[in-house]
Amino acid sequence: MTKRTSILIVGAGAIGSFYGAILKRAGCQVDTVLRSDFEVVKEKGICIISPLGDLSYQPDHVYRDGDTPESTPDYLILCVKVLPGANRAELVKPWMGQNTCLVLIENGLDIERELAEAFPDNPIISCLAFIAASRSEPGVVEHKAHGKLVMGSYPKGIDGNCQTLSVLFVDGGIKVDLTEAVVGERWRKCLWNTPFNPLSVIANGADTRTILDTEGGEELIRVMIREVMTVAAAEGYLMDESLIDQNIEGTRKMPAYKNSMALDYINGRPIERDAVLGNVVAIAQRHGIPIPHLNTVLVTLKMRAKLEGRD
Amino acid sequence: MTKRTSILIVGAGAIGSFYGAILKRAGCQVDTVLRSDFEVVKEKGICIISPLGDLSYQPDHVYRDGDTPESTPDYLILCVKVLPGANRAELVKPWMGQNTCLVLIENGLDIERELAEAFPDNPIISCLAFIAASRSEPGVVEHKAHGKLVMGSYPKGIDGNCQTLSVLFVDGGIKVDLTEAVVGERWRKCLWNTPFNPLSVIANGADTRTILDTEGGEELIRVMIREVMTVAAAEGYLMDESLIDQNIEGTRKMPAYKNSMALDYINGRPIERDAVLGNVVAIAQRHGIPIPHLNTVLVTLKMRAKLEGRD
Repeated sequence: MTKRTSILIVGAGAIGSFYGAILKRAGCQVDTVLRSDFEVVKEKGICIISPLGDLSYQPDHVYRDGDTPESTPDYLILCVKVLPGANRAELVKPWMGQNTCLVLIENGLDIERELAEAFPDNPIISCLAFIAASRSEPGVVEHKAHGKLVMGSYPKGIDGNCQTLSVLFVDGGIKVDLTEAVVGERWRKCLWNTPFNPLSVIANGADTRTILDTEGGEELIRVMIREVMTVAAAEGYLMDESLIDQNIEGTRKMPAYKNSMALDYINGRPIERDAVLGNVVAIAQRHGIPIPHLNTVLVTLKMRAKLEGRD
Repeated sequence: MTKRTSILIVGAGAIGSFYGAILKRAGCQVDTVLRSDFEVVKEKGICIISPLGDLSYQPDHVYRDGDTPESTPDYLILCVKVLPGANRAELVKPWMGQNTCLVLIENGLDIERELAEAFPDNPIISCLAFIAASRSEPGVVEHKAHGKLVMGSYPKGIDGNCQTLSVLFVDGGIKVDLTEAVVGERWRKCLWNTPFNPLSVIANGADTRTILDTEGGEELIRVMIREVMTVAAAEGYLMDESLIDQNIEGTRKMPAYKNSMALDYINGRPIERDAVLGNVVAIAQRHGIPIPHLNTVLVTLKMRAKLEGRD
């Protein structure tokens, strides 16, 4: 009998808890590192309300920041928000083994680099989650829809670790798209996130419909998408012009929608400003590409943060 | 004995009340049209706390919107905020005589046009007030500093009405700069107001120091000033590049300062968005001049207004 694959989820919020459940269902050993929900999960496990059925589970080990792990995992899955000042390399360091594969299920662009630099000898898998899920109370996650992962080795390719993990996710019941160019997929997702998320914050929590129906709003979104595309192209990720129309039309077909950054802002939580926008602007500046619209939004968000003492 | 010059102040807030006091002191008949402060002023007059001395006065007539005037004034001084949906031509119409000279002491750019179109046969004087004053309670104005008016006939020149009125203001104790090109002076003032005022609102009421000290903030202000200059130049008002440095350095020398639009925003009052920014963007678009930074700020302000049901 082969040893079960061991998984450690660092940052078991809605996303981490859900994908942990999927891997648990696939027969893995699933441990978690928790902060605020530690006591509840230790006692009662993680409850997941999902259209996929009952996914509730008791992690094999429930750790807290600062604990000493019994062993290092095959895969460390990192699901924390990417915030300025949060040192993710320090966060995972105590849990990383020599052969641990580091898996990121996180939003944004150029978010792998600091980890690749900190752990140059460990394989890294980068994932994008297409899912609607939220933590309704400590230890309880509501999975509303979707769940697909787009996954590839970082910076590119699909290595054996990536294939193995993808099979486990599929066994657990979700769809996985493997990609040779996961960074390109991040750029593709940012075509939407980079304009819509920060604009919704600047507009004090506006939904997609409000943004697009404001006089000049759709035009502003289009020109911001175009700026992101120009930066992506300079990085070697060419995207078709038609994606602009597709993003606009796709959004118009959805009901009015408040994205996760808008919800974070409304609820007084920190926003993933740099992962979604600041890093795109920084890359543009390295290439000398003018991105006046993106930059205006970024600087105004920084002014707010400064006013609120957060920058 | 010649008839006293008659003045009617429409919109006697801090600015209107103050300049009414100056003209009262110069010996004019000064009437006011009031809304919320009508009862208080009718009974107690207007109290003005000022470094210039006791400027408190009882207007010769205190009118209310809808009243029938006893006579039409020589000068109607309009001091209301320039807000979308506020029809200023309708507001002054009942009080305008055939020979009444219409005087605007208001902020913004291209704010004379709708009045010039409504009253093509009346002379119009356009003024910029450089003053720190606020209404501390009904009928009470605190004049803190300054008070200079820059004044000229609209659209240009200095006619006899303008000369006469300027002499009265000087007699009353303030400094007046007469200008042959008052629209150019508006552009010059907008070099500061058009970037700083809306940015302070977008940044939730940030002061000048916060705006300039944010990473990328000074650079954003500079590029927005440059955009305003380019539009001004297309309208025939060439301004020297050195004004960019002058505006930045002048602002850095001041203590941290919340401009009037920031205060309006913080206090939940409507903001003069179009007078200060929207009209500049509209003129740029007529000329086909790209103003990406100004436009991004304008559209995001519109998104907010839409979200709040104000647009």
